[in-house]
Amino acid sequence: MPDISEQAIDLHAKHQGKLEITSKVEINNATDLSLAYTPGVGAVSRAVAKDKNLAKKLTLSGRTVAVISDGSAVLGLGNIGPEAALPVMEGKALLIKRFSGLDSFPLVVNTKEPRELIRFVEQVAPTFSAINLEDITAPNCFEVEEALQDIGIPVFHDDQHGTAIVVAAALRNAAKVVDKPYESLRVGIIGSGAAGLAIAKMLLGATCYFDNCSIINALPRVKDVVVFDRQGALYRGRSGMNVYKQAVAGISNNDLIQGSPLETLGGFDVLVGVSGPGSITPELVKKLAKKSIIFAMANPDPEIMPDEAKKAGAYVIATGRSDFKNQINNVLAFPAIFNIAHKLNLKQITPEVKIALVDALASLTPNPTAEEVIVSPFYPNLVETLTKKVIQSLK
Amino acid sequence: MPDISEQAIDLHAKHQGKLEITSKVEINNATDLSLAYTPGVGAVSRAVAKDKNLAKKLTLSGRTVAVISDGSAVLGLGNIGPEAALPVMEGKALLIKRFSGLDSFPLVVNTKEPRELIRFVEQVAPTFSAINLEDITAPNCFEVEEALQDIGIPVFHDDQHGTAIVVAAALRNAAKVVDKPYESLRVGIIGSGAAGLAIAKMLLGATCYFDNCSIINALPRVKDVVVFDRQGALYRGRSGMNVYKQAVAGISNNDLIQGSPLETLGGFDVLVGVSGPGSITPELVKKLAKKSIIFAMANPDPEIMPDEAKKAGAYVIATGRSDFKNQINNVLAFPAIFNIAHKLNLKQITPEVKIALVDALASLTPNPTAEEVIVSPFYPNLVETLTKKVIQSLK
Repeated sequence: MPDISEQAIDLHAKHQGKLEITSKVEINNATDLSLAYTPGVGAVSRAVAKDKNLAKKLTLSGRTVAVISDGSAVLGLGNIGPEAALPVMEGKALLIKRFSGLDSFPLVVNTKEPRELIRFVEQVAPTFSAINLEDITAPNCFEVEEALQDIGIPVFHDDQHGTAIVVAAALRNAAKVVDKPYESLRVGIIGSGAAGLAIAKMLLGATCYFDNCSIINALPRVKDVVVFDRQGALYRGRSGMNVYKQAVAGISNNDLIQGSPLETLGGFDVLVGVSGPGSITPELVKKLAKKSIIFAMANPDPEIMPDEAKKAGAYVIATGRSDFKNQINNVLAFPAIFNIAHKLNLKQITPEVKIALVDALASLTPNPTAEEVIVSPFYPNLVETLTKKVIQSLK
Repeated sequence: MPDISEQAIDLHAKHQGKLEITSKVEINNATDLSLAYTPGVGAVSRAVAKDKNLAKKLTLSGRTVAVISDGSAVLGLGNIGPEAALPVMEGKALLIKRFSGLDSFPLVVNTKEPRELIRFVEQVAPTFSAINLEDITAPNCFEVEEALQDIGIPVFHDDQHGTAIVVAAALRNAAKVVDKPYESLRVGIIGSGAAGLAIAKMLLGATCYFDNCSIINALPRVKDVVVFDRQGALYRGRSGMNVYKQAVAGISNNDLIQGSPLETLGGFDVLVGVSGPGSITPELVKKLAKKSIIFAMANPDPEIMPDEAKKAGAYVIATGRSDFKNQINNVLAFPAIFNIAHKLNLKQITPEVKIALVDALASLTPNPTAEEVIVSPFYPNLVETLTKKVIQSLK
């Protein structure tokens, strides 16, 4: 895609990025300055010193989401560092503003230590209304997110939950398209990072809140999920798994399947790629059950190109990219998540909110087709509609 | 000032702060999304991964100044914490944008440990083009600023240097107004925090670069400075001084004056207040030499109100407030400092830049009067004019 790459670089060079910080008040004379700055601002600071909560009403901290990354797992590009992560974080902040109306600012952090990243977020939290963690390598991301659930503002790791929400919603609709009950689906997930493990849990109806994980029986659940890392399928008792993989192994892969995707996924209904280009081959697609569903989610380069997957026999194909049909991208979830949290003044993004958003998102495509299992980010009033539906269902 | 206080709180409540984050690019369809976000942004991240410096050209990090505070010494209000500091930081960021055109974002940091604050700034540095440290208590602020001089972008502690630059420029002009040679002035400084010590050094022609401090003989210097803390005058060999006070004691107070301002400042020409309301009394003003100069700089409440100082016999009176005449406020310096650093791609704000800015700022008021020793922040094209003059003089 040399064309899009060049155009994208030109666009970023032209504007020196994508975000601008502008003033909501005019500063044209000494009176303006007296109110927005000294001495007037002294009264504002005094008021907040008396009641900390007033800061949310009198400063941008009541309406601004931080998008924070250490650059350790950027898109499908890996550990490319904070500087190289910044274009993505600036984009994410832009999308939060564009789709939810909330302000958002990107912060890239020069550390690779989870403890340091946790401390960083704790320290900067008074500036913001919510934190979107982004592109942090697994398993660090799990530790970081969990440690930050009680800092008083919502902390949401989008690569896990945003992806899981959108995949679950899209898969419910894709099941209708291929005319198979959602509860009958067997799903292979290639990739056991943040997204892979979160998707597995979401599809199995397993939720975690702080460190309390449980299966919610009332939730729609697929029949089985098998997650793969480079060693092969995760299964109970396998060696070489971190604790987060062990936890998922314990609730998935009922048949204790062992081996590579190609060796083991014959007859499966769904293949979700959350690893990188090339990890889904036409050969693998051919092994799947009839009317197979492929979500090739790696960005910018999907695990398999849609036309290749189609040629190999897949029936429903989706990617994370904006320039292909059927975009399954977190942008369908994270602006709504932060908008809901803002409207409900949430301190955490609870499992109930995530699950309600899956329902709401799936419901916007009542008659899905192979080319459209989920709405586009440009669905009119998407975030507003989702927010209303979620708030309604949580009542 | 109940009126201004109420108005200021109303203004902040109306806008929920003062800054907005807006998009520089339109996101109206999938193509827009492809360029600003995935897949296009992948090409931008890849380019930066190959050459980190490209981040400054392709993201907001090339044009955005962070305003960072731990809330430990906010205005004259003291250690009121990060939340209560945020209105001031948001205001500072707004002023940088308004007067220099550079973007700026406030970050308040929940820590009181200088080592943690240093680490925080190091970690967040890849997001920004420069750092404005603000309202950090002395002596922590000295340690923090010094430790951050080699992080690759300029780190400027405005409370020290911004204040010192503007005071020095205003005092040069005030000396003309009272018709006393600058080099003959004896100056009392009430307050030995960030501003007090920095002003003392600047008036004495002493500069520090990293930990290398020296007296520049070519600089205009006042005759003597005596700095006061709560124990009284700083003098060589006094006990109860931190190392930063010791350093200033070593170059000031030639006569080894000991005691309180009231006991010791009889006959002095200039009184600079950088402490808090009430620390300059009419009684003290009456002890000064004829045609005395009072800079009462505490914000929002000056050490003495201008009408009181005038009644007690002061000839030139200035404060930091926007609603009084003769505003000696950092806003005359910091937007220019960051603009100069941006234009010259500086990695540090060197003493030469600060000194050149004193000259430039003083020169804009060629015929000072008692009511106007320094320009207003609304002087036409102030920052542009100062930037040109400084760049010219540095050549």
